[in-house]
Amino acid sequence: MISVVLLGAGNVATHLYKEFKNSDTITVTQWYNRHINKISTYKNEVEVTDDLNALNIADIYILAISDDAISSVSKALPFQDRFVVHTSGTASLYDIDEKHRRGVFYPLQTFTKEADIDFSNIPLCIEALKKADFKLLKKLAQAIGSTDYKVSTEQRKRLHIAAVFANNFTNQLYRITHEITEANQMEFEILKPLILETAKKIQTMSPYVAQTGPAVRGDKKTIKKHLNLIENPQHKAIYKLLTNSILETHGRKKL
Amino acid sequence: MISVVLLGAGNVATHLYKEFKNSDTITVTQWYNRHINKISTYKNEVEVTDDLNALNIADIYILAISDDAISSVSKALPFQDRFVVHTSGTASLYDIDEKHRRGVFYPLQTFTKEADIDFSNIPLCIEALKKADFKLLKKLAQAIGSTDYKVSTEQRKRLHIAAVFANNFTNQLYRITHEITEANQMEFEILKPLILETAKKIQTMSPYVAQTGPAVRGDKKTIKKHLNLIENPQHKAIYKLLTNSILETHGRKKL
Repeated sequence: MISVVLLGAGNVATHLYKEFKNSDTITVTQWYNRHINKISTYKNEVEVTDDLNALNIADIYILAISDDAISSVSKALPFQDRFVVHTSGTASLYDIDEKHRRGVFYPLQTFTKEADIDFSNIPLCIEALKKADFKLLKKLAQAIGSTDYKVSTEQRKRLHIAAVFANNFTNQLYRITHEITEANQMEFEILKPLILETAKKIQTMSPYVAQTGPAVRGDKKTIKKHLNLIENPQHKAIYKLLTNSILETHGRKKL
Repeated sequence: MISVVLLGAGNVATHLYKEFKNSDTITVTQWYNRHINKISTYKNEVEVTDDLNALNIADIYILAISDDAISSVSKALPFQDRFVVHTSGTASLYDIDEKHRRGVFYPLQTFTKEADIDFSNIPLCIEALKKADFKLLKKLAQAIGSTDYKVSTEQRKRLHIAAVFANNFTNQLYRITHEITEANQMEFEILKPLILETAKKIQTMSPYVAQTGPAVRGDKKTIKKHLNLIENPQHKAIYKLLTNSILETHGRKKL
Protein backbone atom coordinates (compact mmCIF):
# COMPACT_ATOMS: atom_id res chain seq x y z
CA MET A 1 0.00 0.00 0.00
CA ILE A 2 1.29 3.47 -0.89
CA SER A 3 0.18 6.14 1.56
CA VAL A 4 -0.35 9.63 0.18
CA VAL A 5 -0.97 13.04 1.72
CA LEU A 6 -2.53 15.33 -0.87
CA LEU A 7 -2.09 19.11 -0.72
CA GLY A 8 -4.25 21.48 -2.79
CA ALA A 9 -7.84 21.64 -3.99
CA GLY A 10 -7.60 22.52 -7.68
CA ASN A 11 -8.45 20.41 -10.73
CA VAL A 12 -5.36 18.22 -10.55
CA ALA A 13 -5.74 17.60 -6.80
CA THR A 14 -9.41 16.73 -7.15
CA HIS A 15 -8.88 14.35 -10.07
CA LEU A 16 -5.93 12.67 -8.34
CA TYR A 17 -7.93 12.25 -5.14
CA LYS A 18 -10.79 10.50 -6.96
CA GLU A 19 -8.39 8.27 -8.86
CA PHE A 20 -6.38 7.34 -5.75
CA LYS A 21 -9.58 6.55 -3.88
CA ASN A 22 -10.52 3.99 -6.55
CA SER A 23 -7.14 2.26 -6.37
CA ASP A 24 -6.58 -0.82 -4.20
CA THR A 25 -2.91 -0.06 -3.68
CA ILE A 26 -3.07 3.65 -2.81
CA THR A 27 -4.51 5.18 0.34
CA VAL A 28 -4.98 8.91 0.78
CA THR A 29 -4.42 9.32 4.51
CA GLN A 30 -5.02 13.05 4.54
CA TRP A 31 -6.10 15.92 2.33
CA TYR A 32 -4.79 19.37 3.13
CA ASN A 33 -5.95 22.72 1.84
CA ARG A 34 -5.31 26.26 3.08
CA HIS A 35 -9.07 26.94 2.83
CA ILE A 36 -10.67 23.87 4.34
CA ASN A 37 -14.15 24.69 2.98
CA LYS A 38 -12.97 23.73 -0.51
CA ILE A 39 -12.45 20.10 0.54
CA SER A 40 -14.80 19.73 3.49
CA THR A 41 -17.42 17.95 1.37
CA TYR A 42 -15.01 14.98 1.41
CA LYS A 43 -14.61 14.87 5.21
CA ASN A 44 -16.67 11.71 5.60
CA GLU A 45 -14.36 9.69 3.40
CA VAL A 46 -10.93 11.19 4.14
CA GLU A 47 -9.29 13.18 6.92
CA VAL A 48 -9.25 16.82 5.80
CA THR A 49 -7.13 19.53 7.39
CA ASP A 50 -5.97 23.12 6.95
CA ASP A 51 -3.09 22.77 9.40
CA LEU A 52 0.35 21.88 8.01
CA ASN A 53 1.48 21.00 11.55
CA ALA A 54 -1.15 18.28 11.77
CA LEU A 55 0.11 16.29 8.75
CA ASN A 56 0.53 12.53 9.16
CA ILE A 57 3.49 10.46 8.10
CA ALA A 58 3.09 9.21 4.51
CA ASP A 59 5.14 7.66 1.71
CA ILE A 60 4.49 10.60 -0.61
CA TYR A 61 3.34 14.20 -0.13
CA ILE A 62 1.84 15.52 -3.34
CA LEU A 63 1.81 19.30 -3.79
CA ALA A 64 -0.96 19.84 -6.34
CA ILE A 65 -0.78 23.59 -5.83
CA SER A 66 0.05 26.66 -7.92
CA ASP A 67 3.65 27.00 -9.16
CA ASP A 68 4.26 30.10 -7.07
CA ALA A 69 3.33 28.32 -3.84
CA ILE A 70 5.58 25.26 -4.26
CA SER A 71 8.66 26.83 -2.74
CA SER A 72 6.97 28.38 0.31
CA VAL A 73 4.63 25.50 1.12
CA SER A 74 7.41 22.91 0.82
CA LYS A 75 9.53 25.08 3.14
CA ALA A 76 6.67 25.36 5.63
CA LEU A 77 6.21 21.60 5.92
CA PRO A 78 7.27 20.81 9.52
CA PHE A 79 9.43 17.77 8.68
CA GLN A 80 12.37 16.73 6.52
CA ASP A 81 13.81 13.74 4.61
CA ARG A 82 10.33 12.75 3.49
CA PHE A 83 9.33 12.36 -0.17
CA VAL A 84 7.68 15.54 -1.48
CA VAL A 85 6.63 15.94 -5.12
CA HIS A 86 4.85 18.60 -7.12
CA THR A 87 2.53 18.17 -10.15
CA SER A 88 3.58 21.20 -12.20
CA GLY A 89 4.54 21.23 -15.87
CA THR A 90 6.82 24.22 -15.52
CA ALA A 91 8.20 24.39 -11.96
CA SER A 92 11.65 22.91 -11.36
CA LEU A 93 12.18 19.93 -9.11
CA TYR A 94 14.52 22.26 -7.23
CA ASP A 95 11.66 24.60 -6.36
CA ILE A 96 10.87 22.10 -3.63
CA ASP A 97 12.78 22.88 -0.42
CA GLU A 98 16.04 20.94 -0.24
CA LYS A 99 15.29 19.55 3.21
CA HIS A 100 13.02 16.99 1.51
CA ARG A 101 13.58 14.08 -0.83
CA ARG A 102 12.26 15.70 -4.00
CA GLY A 103 10.33 14.60 -7.06
CA VAL A 104 7.83 15.54 -9.78
CA PHE A 105 4.59 13.78 -10.70
CA TYR A 106 3.21 15.70 -13.69
CA PRO A 107 0.12 14.40 -15.49
CA LEU A 108 0.19 15.70 -19.06
CA GLN A 109 -3.45 16.40 -19.76
CA THR A 110 -6.01 19.17 -19.91
CA PHE A 111 -8.08 19.10 -16.74
CA THR A 112 -11.50 20.62 -16.29
CA LYS A 113 -13.15 20.05 -12.94
CA GLU A 114 -16.49 18.86 -14.35
CA ALA A 115 -15.22 16.40 -16.93
CA ASP A 116 -14.41 12.87 -15.83
CA ILE A 117 -10.85 11.87 -16.60
CA ASP A 118 -9.66 8.40 -17.51
CA PHE A 119 -6.15 8.23 -16.07
CA SER A 120 -5.30 5.19 -18.14
CA ASN A 121 -5.00 7.65 -21.02
CA ILE A 122 -2.89 10.19 -19.18
CA PRO A 123 0.89 10.10 -19.53
CA LEU A 124 2.62 10.73 -16.21
CA CYS A 125 5.96 12.51 -16.38
CA ILE A 126 7.99 11.52 -13.37
CA GLU A 127 11.28 12.68 -11.95
CA ALA A 128 13.09 12.03 -8.66
CA LEU A 129 16.61 12.45 -7.34
CA LYS A 130 16.81 9.02 -5.66
CA LYS A 131 16.31 5.72 -7.41
CA ALA A 132 13.98 4.30 -4.73
CA ASP A 133 11.81 7.43 -4.90
CA PHE A 134 11.66 7.19 -8.68
CA LYS A 135 10.49 3.59 -8.40
CA LEU A 136 7.78 4.62 -5.95
CA LEU A 137 6.44 7.24 -8.41
CA LYS A 138 6.48 4.61 -11.14
CA LYS A 139 4.40 2.34 -8.89
CA LEU A 140 2.03 5.22 -8.10
CA ALA A 141 1.51 5.96 -11.82
CA GLN A 142 0.94 2.29 -12.60
CA ALA A 143 -1.52 1.93 -9.72
CA ILE A 144 -3.85 4.40 -11.45
CA GLY A 145 -3.30 2.78 -14.84
CA SER A 146 -1.18 5.57 -16.31
CA THR A 147 1.79 5.22 -18.63
CA ASP A 148 4.83 6.78 -16.99
CA TYR A 149 7.66 8.60 -18.73
CA LYS A 150 11.00 9.59 -17.20
CA VAL A 151 11.20 13.31 -17.94
CA SER A 152 13.88 15.64 -16.54
CA THR A 153 13.11 19.20 -15.41
CA GLU A 154 14.71 20.58 -18.60
CA GLN A 155 12.71 18.20 -20.78
CA ARG A 156 9.51 18.94 -18.88
CA LYS A 157 9.88 22.67 -19.58
CA ARG A 158 10.01 21.91 -23.32
CA LEU A 159 7.19 19.43 -23.02
CA HIS A 160 5.05 22.12 -21.44
CA ILE A 161 5.72 24.35 -24.43
CA ALA A 162 4.80 21.49 -26.76
CA ALA A 163 1.58 21.05 -24.77
CA VAL A 164 0.74 24.73 -25.36
CA PHE A 165 1.05 24.10 -29.11
CA ALA A 166 -0.87 20.80 -28.97
CA ASN A 167 -3.63 22.06 -26.72
CA ASN A 168 -4.00 25.86 -26.40
CA PHE A 169 -2.91 26.81 -29.93
CA THR A 170 -4.80 23.96 -31.56
CA ASN A 171 -7.87 25.01 -29.62
CA GLN A 172 -7.40 28.59 -30.83
CA LEU A 173 -7.39 27.31 -34.42
CA TYR A 174 -10.71 25.61 -33.59
CA ARG A 175 -11.91 28.96 -32.26
CA ILE A 176 -10.94 30.67 -35.53
CA THR A 177 -12.88 28.08 -37.54
CA HIS A 178 -15.82 28.78 -35.23
CA GLU A 179 -15.50 32.48 -36.12
CA ILE A 180 -15.32 31.69 -39.85
CA THR A 181 -18.42 29.47 -39.82
CA GLU A 182 -20.42 31.96 -37.73
CA ALA A 183 -19.42 34.91 -39.91
CA ASN A 184 -20.73 33.00 -42.93
CA GLN A 185 -24.01 31.75 -41.43
CA MET A 186 -22.88 28.15 -41.07
CA GLU A 187 -22.93 25.90 -38.04
CA PHE A 188 -19.62 25.11 -36.31
CA GLU A 189 -21.08 21.59 -35.99
CA ILE A 190 -20.12 20.91 -39.59
CA LEU A 191 -16.37 21.00 -38.72
CA LYS A 192 -16.42 18.78 -35.64
CA PRO A 193 -15.96 15.44 -37.43
CA LEU A 194 -12.98 16.83 -39.37
CA ILE A 195 -11.39 18.13 -36.17
CA LEU A 196 -11.78 14.76 -34.46
CA GLU A 197 -10.51 12.80 -37.46
CA THR A 198 -7.42 15.04 -37.69
CA ALA A 199 -6.50 14.24 -34.09
CA LYS A 200 -7.26 10.54 -34.52
CA LYS A 201 -5.15 10.26 -37.65
CA ILE A 202 -1.87 11.10 -35.92
CA GLN A 203 -2.46 8.43 -33.27
CA THR A 204 -1.16 5.91 -35.82
CA MET A 205 0.54 8.09 -38.45
CA SER A 206 3.20 10.79 -38.08
CA PRO A 207 1.93 14.38 -38.58
CA TYR A 208 4.47 14.68 -41.39
CA VAL A 209 2.90 11.82 -43.34
CA ALA A 210 -0.65 12.80 -42.36
CA GLN A 211 -0.40 16.30 -43.86
CA THR A 212 -2.78 17.17 -46.71
CA GLY A 213 -4.07 20.40 -48.28
CA PRO A 214 -2.84 23.20 -50.56
CA ALA A 215 0.45 23.97 -48.76
CA VAL A 216 1.87 20.44 -48.77
CA ARG A 217 0.78 20.08 -52.42
CA GLY A 218 2.51 23.38 -53.21
CA ASP A 219 -0.81 24.59 -54.64
CA LYS A 220 -0.03 28.33 -54.64
CA LYS A 221 -3.15 29.11 -56.70
CA THR A 222 -5.50 27.90 -53.94
CA ILE A 223 -3.35 29.58 -51.27
CA LYS A 224 -3.65 32.92 -53.11
CA LYS A 225 -7.41 32.49 -53.49
CA HIS A 226 -7.72 31.81 -49.76
CA LEU A 227 -5.60 34.82 -48.80
CA ASN A 228 -7.74 37.05 -51.01
CA LEU A 229 -10.90 35.79 -49.32
CA ILE A 230 -9.73 36.14 -45.70
CA GLU A 231 -10.70 39.57 -44.40
CA ASN A 232 -9.73 39.32 -40.73
CA PRO A 233 -6.08 40.51 -40.62
CA GLN A 234 -5.16 38.19 -37.75
CA HIS A 235 -6.63 35.17 -39.52
CA LYS A 236 -4.66 36.19 -42.61
CA ALA A 237 -1.39 36.47 -40.66
CA ILE A 238 -1.93 33.04 -39.11
CA TYR A 239 -2.81 31.56 -42.50
CA LYS A 240 0.44 32.93 -43.99
CA LEU A 241 2.69 31.88 -41.13
CA LEU A 242 1.36 28.33 -40.84
CA THR A 243 1.33 27.88 -44.61
CA ASN A 244 5.00 28.90 -44.69
CA SER A 245 5.69 26.52 -41.85
CA ILE A 246 4.14 23.63 -43.82
CA LEU A 247 5.98 24.68 -47.00
CA GLU A 248 9.28 24.71 -45.11
CA THR A 249 8.64 21.38 -43.36
CA HIS A 250 7.98 19.73 -46.72
CA GLY A 251 10.94 21.33 -48.51
CA ARG A 252 8.98 23.75 -50.66
CA LYS A 253 9.68 27.39 -51.47
CA LYS A 254 8.03 29.76 -49.01
CA LEU A 255 5.45 32.40 -50.00
CA MET B 1 -33.34 3.50 -56.25
CA ILE B 2 -30.96 6.32 -57.13
CA SER B 3 -28.76 5.53 -60.15
CA VAL B 4 -25.30 7.06 -60.17
CA VAL B 5 -22.53 7.32 -62.75
CA LEU B 6 -19.24 8.01 -61.00
CA LEU B 7 -16.39 9.85 -62.76
CA GLY B 8 -12.85 9.88 -61.36
CA ALA B 9 -10.55 7.47 -59.52
CA GLY B 10 -9.09 9.48 -56.66
CA ASN B 11 -9.68 9.12 -52.91
CA VAL B 12 -13.12 10.71 -52.90
CA ALA B 13 -14.32 8.65 -55.90
CA THR B 14 -13.05 5.42 -54.40
CA HIS B 15 -14.59 6.05 -50.98
CA LEU B 16 -17.90 7.11 -52.54
CA TYR B 17 -17.95 4.01 -54.74
CA LYS B 18 -17.47 1.69 -51.75
CA GLU B 19 -20.10 3.50 -49.75
CA PHE B 20 -22.67 3.54 -52.59
CA LYS B 21 -22.06 -0.16 -53.19
CA ASN B 22 -23.07 -0.90 -49.58
CA SER B 23 -26.28 1.09 -49.85
CA ASP B 24 -29.61 -0.57 -50.67
CA THR B 25 -31.02 2.55 -52.30
CA ILE B 26 -28.11 3.58 -54.52
CA THR B 27 -26.84 1.77 -57.56
CA VAL B 28 -23.63 2.72 -59.35
CA THR B 29 -24.45 1.86 -62.93
CA GLN B 30 -21.09 2.88 -64.34
CA TRP B 31 -17.65 4.03 -63.26
CA TYR B 32 -15.69 6.20 -65.66
CA ASN B 33 -12.03 7.13 -65.58
CA ARG B 34 -9.74 8.57 -68.21
CA HIS B 35 -7.18 5.86 -67.40
CA ILE B 36 -9.20 2.69 -67.14
CA ASN B 37 -6.40 0.71 -65.46
CA LYS B 38 -7.00 2.69 -62.25
CA ILE B 39 -10.49 1.22 -61.85
CA SER B 40 -10.25 -2.03 -63.80
CA THR B 41 -9.90 -4.07 -60.58
CA TYR B 42 -13.59 -3.31 -60.01
CA LYS B 43 -14.76 -4.51 -63.44
CA ASN B 44 -16.38 -7.68 -62.05
CA GLU B 45 -18.73 -5.71 -59.81
CA VAL B 46 -19.44 -2.58 -61.85
CA GLU B 47 -19.31 -1.53 -65.48
CA VAL B 48 -16.09 0.44 -65.96
CA THR B 49 -15.34 2.65 -68.95
CA ASP B 50 -12.88 5.23 -70.25
CA ASP B 51 -15.24 6.47 -72.97
CA LEU B 52 -17.43 9.48 -72.20
CA ASN B 53 -19.57 8.64 -75.25
CA ALA B 54 -20.49 5.29 -73.71
CA LEU B 55 -22.06 6.74 -70.55
CA ASN B 56 -25.49 5.36 -69.52
CA ILE B 57 -28.46 7.38 -68.44
CA ALA B 58 -28.45 7.98 -64.66
CA ASP B 59 -30.13 10.15 -62.02
CA ILE B 60 -26.82 11.73 -61.00
CA TYR B 61 -23.39 12.08 -62.59
CA ILE B 62 -20.77 12.67 -59.92
CA LEU B 63 -17.54 14.36 -61.02
CA ALA B 64 -15.06 13.32 -58.31
CA ILE B 65 -12.18 14.77 -60.32
CA SER B 66 -9.60 17.54 -59.87
CA ASP B 67 -10.90 21.12 -59.75
CA ASP B 68 -9.16 22.06 -62.98
CA ALA B 69 -10.90 19.29 -64.92
CA ILE B 70 -14.49 20.05 -63.84
CA SER B 71 -15.15 22.61 -66.54
CA SER B 72 -13.70 20.64 -69.48
CA VAL B 73 -15.06 17.22 -68.49
CA SER B 74 -18.56 18.57 -67.85
CA LYS B 75 -18.42 20.26 -71.26
CA ALA B 76 -17.28 17.04 -72.93
CA LEU B 77 -20.21 15.03 -71.56
CA PRO B 78 -22.25 14.15 -74.71
CA PHE B 79 -25.66 15.00 -73.25
CA GLN B 80 -27.55 17.87 -71.63
CA ASP B 81 -30.29 18.60 -69.05
CA ARG B 82 -29.06 15.78 -66.85
CA PHE B 83 -27.99 16.27 -63.22
CA VAL B 84 -24.22 16.72 -62.93
CA VAL B 85 -22.50 17.49 -59.60
CA HIS B 86 -18.89 17.89 -58.48
CA THR B 87 -17.34 17.01 -55.09
CA SER B 88 -14.92 19.92 -54.72
CA GLY B 89 -14.52 22.18 -51.69
CA THR B 90 -13.36 25.15 -53.74
CA ALA B 91 -14.77 24.94 -57.26
CA SER B 92 -17.90 26.91 -58.01
CA LEU B 93 -21.17 25.25 -58.96
CA TYR B 94 -20.91 27.37 -62.10
CA ASP B 95 -17.69 25.62 -63.15
CA ILE B 96 -19.98 22.87 -64.39
CA ASP B 97 -21.08 23.47 -67.99
CA GLU B 98 -24.41 25.28 -68.15
CA LYS B 99 -25.97 22.72 -70.48
CA HIS B 100 -26.49 20.50 -67.40
CA ARG B 101 -28.63 20.73 -64.30
CA ARG B 102 -25.89 21.56 -61.82
CA GLY B 103 -25.05 20.74 -58.20
CA VAL B 104 -22.35 20.16 -55.58
CA PHE B 105 -21.89 17.14 -53.31
CA TYR B 106 -18.90 17.98 -51.12
CA PRO B 107 -17.94 15.63 -48.29
CA LEU B 108 -16.06 17.65 -45.64
CA GLN B 109 -13.45 15.21 -44.45
CA THR B 110 -9.81 14.29 -44.82
CA PHE B 111 -9.52 11.28 -47.10
CA THR B 112 -6.62 8.90 -47.36
CA LYS B 113 -7.01 5.97 -49.70
CA GLU B 114 -5.91 3.31 -47.22
CA ALA B 115 -7.99 4.39 -44.22
CA ASP B 116 -11.58 3.20 -43.99
CA ILE B 117 -14.06 6.02 -43.73
CA ASP B 118 -17.31 5.98 -41.81
CA PHE B 119 -19.61 8.21 -43.83
CA SER B 120 -22.07 8.50 -40.99
CA ASN B 121 -19.52 10.90 -39.47
CA ILE B 122 -18.96 12.93 -42.61
CA PRO B 123 -20.92 16.14 -43.16
CA LEU B 124 -22.07 16.49 -46.75
CA CYS B 125 -22.32 20.03 -48.09
CA ILE B 126 -24.90 20.08 -50.84
CA GLU B 127 -25.97 22.69 -53.34
CA ALA B 128 -28.21 22.61 -56.40
CA LEU B 129 -30.02 25.13 -58.59
CA LYS B 130 -33.34 23.23 -58.74
CA LYS B 131 -35.39 22.17 -55.76
CA ALA B 132 -35.96 18.62 -57.00
CA ASP B 133 -32.23 18.18 -57.61
CA PHE B 134 -31.45 19.47 -54.12
CA LYS B 135 -33.88 16.92 -52.66
CA LEU B 136 -32.20 14.15 -54.62
CA LEU B 137 -28.77 15.10 -53.19
CA LYS B 138 -30.31 15.14 -49.71
CA LYS B 139 -31.61 11.61 -50.31
CA LEU B 140 -28.21 10.53 -51.61
CA ALA B 141 -26.47 11.86 -48.49
CA GLN B 142 -29.00 10.23 -46.21
CA ALA B 143 -28.69 6.91 -48.04
CA ILE B 144 -25.05 6.67 -46.95
CA GLY B 145 -25.85 7.83 -43.41
CA SER B 146 -24.32 11.29 -43.71
CA THR B 147 -25.59 14.52 -42.22
CA ASP B 148 -26.30 17.01 -45.00
CA TYR B 149 -25.86 20.76 -44.86
CA LYS B 150 -27.13 23.27 -47.38
CA VAL B 151 -24.02 25.27 -48.25
CA SER B 152 -23.81 27.84 -51.05
CA THR B 153 -20.76 28.23 -53.29
CA GLU B 154 -19.71 31.37 -51.40
CA GLN B 155 -20.12 29.62 -48.04
CA ARG B 156 -18.29 26.55 -49.29
CA LYS B 157 -15.26 28.65 -50.21
CA ARG B 158 -15.07 29.94 -46.64
CA LEU B 159 -15.72 26.48 -45.26
CA HIS B 160 -12.76 25.19 -47.23
CA ILE B 161 -10.57 27.85 -45.62
CA ALA B 162 -11.92 26.87 -42.20
CA ALA B 163 -11.06 23.25 -43.03
CA VAL B 164 -7.48 24.29 -43.78
CA PHE B 165 -7.28 25.78 -40.28
CA ALA B 166 -9.02 22.81 -38.63
CA ASN B 167 -7.07 20.15 -40.47
CA ASN B 168 -3.83 21.28 -42.19
CA PHE B 169 -2.80 23.95 -39.69
CA THR B 170 -3.77 21.90 -36.67
CA ASN B 171 -1.77 19.03 -38.12
CA GLN B 172 1.21 21.36 -38.58
CA LEU B 173 1.00 22.27 -34.88
CA TYR B 174 1.14 18.53 -34.15
CA ARG B 175 4.20 18.38 -36.41
CA ILE B 176 5.86 21.17 -34.40
CA THR B 177 5.22 19.33 -31.13
CA HIS B 178 6.78 16.27 -32.78
CA GLU B 179 9.86 18.40 -33.55
CA ILE B 180 10.00 19.71 -29.97
CA THR B 181 9.78 16.25 -28.39
CA GLU B 182 12.37 14.78 -30.77
CA ALA B 183 14.79 17.67 -30.25
CA ASN B 184 14.60 17.02 -26.53
CA GLN B 185 14.92 13.23 -26.59
CA MET B 186 11.30 12.56 -25.72
CA GLU B 187 8.78 10.38 -27.50
CA PHE B 188 5.99 12.09 -29.47
CA GLU B 189 3.79 9.33 -28.02
CA ILE B 190 3.57 11.29 -24.78
CA LEU B 191 1.50 14.06 -26.47
CA LYS B 192 -1.02 11.89 -28.29
CA PRO B 193 -3.60 11.61 -25.48
CA LEU B 194 -3.56 15.41 -25.01
CA ILE B 195 -4.06 15.95 -28.74
CA LEU B 196 -7.01 13.58 -28.83
CA GLU B 197 -8.59 15.03 -25.68
CA THR B 198 -8.30 18.58 -27.08
CA ALA B 199 -10.27 17.56 -30.17
CA LYS B 200 -12.82 15.61 -28.13
CA LYS B 201 -13.41 18.49 -25.74
CA ILE B 202 -14.84 20.82 -28.38
CA GLN B 203 -17.34 18.20 -29.52
CA THR B 204 -19.48 19.26 -26.55
CA MET B 205 -17.97 22.59 -25.48
CA SER B 206 -17.23 25.73 -27.52
CA PRO B 207 -13.51 26.33 -28.21
CA TYR B 208 -13.92 29.67 -26.42
CA VAL B 209 -15.00 27.99 -23.18
CA ALA B 210 -12.57 25.08 -23.61
CA GLN B 211 -9.49 27.30 -23.74
CA THR B 212 -6.85 26.85 -21.00
CA GLY B 213 -3.16 27.73 -20.57
CA PRO B 214 -0.97 30.78 -19.97
CA ALA B 215 -2.47 33.08 -22.65
CA VAL B 216 -6.11 32.82 -21.56
CA ARG B 217 -4.99 33.23 -17.92
CA GLY B 218 -2.98 36.32 -18.92
CA ASP B 219 0.07 34.64 -17.38
CA LYS B 220 2.75 36.79 -19.06
CA LYS B 221 5.48 35.37 -16.82
CA THR B 222 5.07 31.87 -18.25
CA ILE B 223 4.70 33.25 -21.78
CA LYS B 224 8.03 35.08 -21.42
CA LYS B 225 9.73 31.97 -20.05
CA HIS B 226 8.46 29.97 -23.00
CA LEU B 227 9.59 32.56 -25.55
CA ASN B 228 13.06 32.57 -23.99
CA LEU B 229 13.28 28.80 -24.24
CA ILE B 230 12.12 28.47 -27.86
CA GLU B 231 15.15 28.56 -30.15
CA ASN B 232 13.55 27.78 -33.54
CA PRO B 233 12.63 31.23 -34.96
CA GLN B 234 9.57 29.90 -36.79
CA HIS B 235 8.25 28.15 -33.67
CA LYS B 236 8.79 31.41 -31.79
CA ALA B 237 6.87 33.44 -34.40
CA ILE B 238 3.95 30.99 -34.28
CA TYR B 239 3.99 31.01 -30.46
CA LYS B 240 3.79 34.83 -30.45
CA LEU B 241 1.09 35.11 -33.10
CA LEU B 242 -1.21 32.45 -31.63
CA THR B 243 -0.68 33.75 -28.10
CA ASN B 244 -1.73 37.21 -29.29
CA SER B 245 -4.72 35.67 -31.02
CA ILE B 246 -5.82 34.02 -27.76
CA LEU B 247 -5.17 37.22 -25.77
CA GLU B 248 -7.31 39.19 -28.24
CA THR B 249 -10.13 36.62 -28.32
CA HIS B 250 -10.35 36.73 -24.54
CA GLY B 251 -10.17 40.54 -24.26
CA ARG B 252 -6.66 40.75 -22.85
CA LYS B 253 -3.83 43.14 -23.75
CA LYS B 254 -1.61 41.76 -26.50
CA LEU B 255 2.14 41.11 -26.07
